[in-house]
Amino acid sequence: MTNELPLTKEAILDAAEQVLRRYGPDKTSVIDIAKFLQVSHGTLYRHFASKAALREAVTERWLDKSIAEPLEGIADTAKGSAAEQLRLWLETLIKKKRMYAVDDAEMFVMYADVTLETGDMITMHINRLMKQIASIIERGMQAGEFKPDSADAISRAVFLATSSFHHPAHAHEWSSETIEEDFDTVWRLLLSGLK
Amino acid sequence: MTNELPLTKEAILDAAEQVLRRYGPDKTSVIDIAKFLQVSHGTLYRHFASKAALREAVTERWLDKSIAEPLEGIADTAKGSAAEQLRLWLETLIKKKRMYAVDDAEMFVMYADVTLETGDMITMHINRLMKQIASIIERGMQAGEFKPDSADAISRAVFLATSSFHHPAHAHEWSSETIEEDFDTVWRLLLSGLK
Repeated sequence: MTNELPLTKEAILDAAEQVLRRYGPDKTSVIDIAKFLQVSHGTLYRHFASKAALREAVTERWLDKSIAEPLEGIADTAKGSAAEQLRLWLETLIKKKRMYAVDDAEMFVMYADVTLETGDMITMHINRLMKQIASIIERGMQAGEFKPDSADAISRAVFLATSSFHHPAHAHEWSSETIEEDFDTVWRLLLSGLK
Repeated sequence: MTNELPLTKEAILDAAEQVLRRYGPDKTSVIDIAKFLQVSHGTLYRHFASKAALREAVTERWLDKSIAEPLEGIADTAKGSAAEQLRLWLETLIKKKRMYAVDDAEMFVMYADVTLETGDMITMHINRLMKQIASIIERGMQAGEFKPDSADAISRAVFLATSSFHHPAHAHEWSSETIEEDFDTVWRLLLSGLK
């Protein structure tokens, strides 16, 4: 007996996130999520064409809430030194990734998998983050704190040059004893390149 | 009927590399390699305790021959500007990785898998590469071309900051249209940080 009430996308994503956390992304099927919602899997497929589409939508919402939105707050706070703001932004990104890799391992593993499939969603997420860095770098350039250059190209380079500290494929390196020191040296190099 | 002649490690690695290339790393079993060598799989297991150990040994030899040794030649040629030498070293590493990802896909996929398992072998390979960069950076520091600093820490930072261009987990990003431009911007930032 299923309860075929109209479903919102948000309600499906809430349910999917709970079920994915409980069983892990590999073991969760669309049927598990349908059962949890007490609807038929046909109903679910009317909202999401495949398990892949559902995983991507859950990951997208998770990345927005857990990563992009909190970082937006830092990027929008335009006071003090742009270098300090940029370092805070990068360190917050890195800390959040490291924390979620351990404390929200199911979501993190799913996000790592979705990243390897490189859909448009991940590109959009990265573009959103790079726009935030660009706004900080642009402010630094306007204030004469950073050398004039293309803020977009430089922010892309800063994001790429710090990948090993925030890209999920490097998560197994984050428990290294030298990781803080390594980031510090990369940061010093980049900062003296920006100035 | 098997032909139990004494086997050298080199002969086993030669055979394993051929069989792995033919069937791909996932589909190759130790039995396939034993058959190819016309020995029992027991004989093979006396040399390599597991399929994982054999894959690691094949990858180690492949990395030495294809990556570390050719780069050693560049690191050892101490003439002209250290900045140009460092850029050539990095570009050669990046070009080789990109070429092998396409032209030697089976070996590359196996290497990418072995890297994720992060054994001591990969750490040793990376340390070997970082020593090569350190020798270039040290020369640049001694010549006053680069700011004085710890050559080891800086070479580690340069290697990490260019990971997205040479770490196998990023291989799917290497077909991006902006990859050359991206490397160029990262390089400019790092170089102006070194100077």
